Amino acid sequence: MKIVLDAMGGDYAPRVTVEGAVETVNDTEDIEVVLIGREDLITEELRHKRYPPERISVRHASEVIAMDEPISVAVRRKKDSSIRQGIELVKKGEAHAFVSAGHSGAVMAFALLLLGTSEGVSRPAIATTMPTLKGPFVLIDAGANVDSEASNLLQFALMGNAYCRNVLGVERPRVALLSIGEEDTKGNELTKEAFRLIKGTGLNFVGNIEGKDIFSGSVDVVVCDGFIGNVVLKVSEGLAETIMRMLKQEIADIATGRLAYLFMKPALKNFKKKTDYAEYGGAPLLGIRGTCIISHGRSSSKAIKNALKTANLSARIRVDEIISTELKNKRKPSRPAAKASA
Amino acid sequence: MKIVLDAMGGDYAPRVTVEGAVETVNDTEDIEVVLIGREDLITEELRHKRYPPERISVRHASEVIAMDEPISVAVRRKKDSSIRQGIELVKKGEAHAFVSAGHSGAVMAFALLLLGTSEGVSRPAIATTMPTLKGPFVLIDAGANVDSEASNLLQFALMGNAYCRNVLGVERPRVALLSIGEEDTKGNELTKEAFRLIKGTGLNFVGNIEGKDIFSGSVDVVVCDGFIGNVVLKVSEGLAETIMRMLKQEIADIATGRLAYLFMKPALKNFKKKTDYAEYGGAPLLGIRGTCIISHGRSSSKAIKNALKTANLSARIRVDEIISTELKNKRKPSRPAAKASA
Repeated sequence: MKIVLDAMGGDYAPRVTVEGAVETVNDTEDIEVVLIGREDLITEELRHKRYPPERISVRHASEVIAMDEPISVAVRRKKDSSIRQGIELVKKGEAHAFVSAGHSGAVMAFALLLLGTSEGVSRPAIATTMPTLKGPFVLIDAGANVDSEASNLLQFALMGNAYCRNVLGVERPRVALLSIGEEDTKGNELTKEAFRLIKGTGLNFVGNIEGKDIFSGSVDVVVCDGFIGNVVLKVSEGLAETIMRMLKQEIADIATGRLAYLFMKPALKNFKKKTDYAEYGGAPLLGIRGTCIISHGRSSSKAIKNALKTANLSARIRVDEIISTELKNKRKPSRPAAKASA
Repeated sequence: MKIVLDAMGGDYAPRVTVEGAVETVNDTEDIEVVLIGREDLITEELRHKRYPPERISVRHASEVIAMDEPISVAVRRKKDSSIRQGIELVKKGEAHAFVSAGHSGAVMAFALLLLGTSEGVSRPAIATTMPTLKGPFVLIDAGANVDSEASNLLQFALMGNAYCRNVLGVERPRVALLSIGEEDTKGNELTKEAFRLIKGTGLNFVGNIEGKDIFSGSVDVVVCDGFIGNVVLKVSEGLAETIMRMLKQEIADIATGRLAYLFMKPALKNFKKKTDYAEYGGAPLLGIRGTCIISHGRSSSKAIKNALKTANLSARIRVDEIISTELKNKRKPSRPAAKASA
């Protein structure tokens, strides 16, 4: 598969994006990377690296969308941005997938504008993989939409399920709806209606899940509106960082701190590895016609590599088409089937 | 002040509630506790304890509302529950405040039913205090309401500000609105409208805050709808527990784990103390006529004691009246003032 990588995207671009591309082609057999962005900068980064030259190419795009740029401005004015031109390559069939650690709002906007939604999909959604005690779960929507309707949440459930099964390899994903109580009747207007709709599908729907349980590893897909999902994602990130900083500070403050730190270092390393978003290969924008993976702005080269691998697998099995087929089959849940599964 | 404590509320009641009451009267000078609930069980718990007998009394209530009981059933059928009878005592003026670690939904329902909202308040809200790197912040609403309107969020901001200033002693609280981007224009329909309204008050409004920043200690009050607030509260609780469990597991799994644990123990203890909800004295239900404090279901006797102290202070300075006055003054922000502060 041929994957376009936004070489200019992310806090440490183009250094880590180019590194990630090189590591990927050296580490895999079937991925070809097109680095898109400022040719001079990319070539400079590539200069002293070893890699099979036929599997990395460079495409020039003169503009870069800054992380804090308003999307409307980026869309109207930056016709030659790496994000726009990269997605254009997918549209033209010159590449199979697009990966960016840059402006996620711009990626969404251009993906919608240029590729459009898959048949049967009302709104695309971001599916983010998060670690738990017993392996990861998928949070969908992690921020593509605000003010979702229940019918959108139903589609997120179907898309998250399809992604989890086909890309993460979970045979029959346990799908849950994020709410503020486990009982069927708990929640707000949106979740109560979504509960009814999701129950009417053939999904392995385990009902509502509360915030305190999402990290227990008891479900595989957590469905919510993108505003809530984004808050959950960012609260989790902020809290995890805060806890680690507070703990380190407390350890530094005690007499035996230096020794404790020394003895626990391998454990910290293992912990970091298990909870590192870099291990989880970026978040796909599901529901668009094509494959787009959004990586964390602070992506390391490993995160880029894993995102490229996710893009490769998603594009190879055509997750977008799987989603389209499943949504067409299930979006109007038939009443008798709903009753039988209830 | 005379505080009614729901002796039957919480996972370890009546043991820890009675312990908490005894610790409180032994530790303070101005608090009198009325233990309400099953007299036989309470008397049994009190039997071997030392305390000034004139400062603890027992009131019998024959029924207990179970944690998983539907509120509607509890309200209709349990006329003699400890929660109902406890709030009734506040209503009749026989006590100044009510504290419960029991069914929070039932506390809210009976508080609304029996005490009603303060003048100028549309909906009460739960204000929960959460730890950060640099001292606590108040999250409001932490779950009293779902499907709030922007005008509700404005009131939550005013109530949270009043509580933070008068009870937590922060002179000019920095009030922020929880959203998914820092810019004024980021968010959903609800937060965008609420942003405009809160900006029109004389509050020290610092704008939107993202989930990742709430634990940085940069704001004192975080305003959001109760569905989101409850999700944030529970995700934080679940994640903090998960991180500590994962870390302990990783430490146990390495060869030097035992030593590391030994050397870091005092640090863990300090960390636990700083992040223990028990230190933060329960969450007031703001906006009702009277003082009601909701404690964590897993409250320890220390958490109960701190909740009783919060209740004491809140009732003494009449936070409910302060809120009522402030809301009456500010609920209709005058346009010119809004422009001047913008």
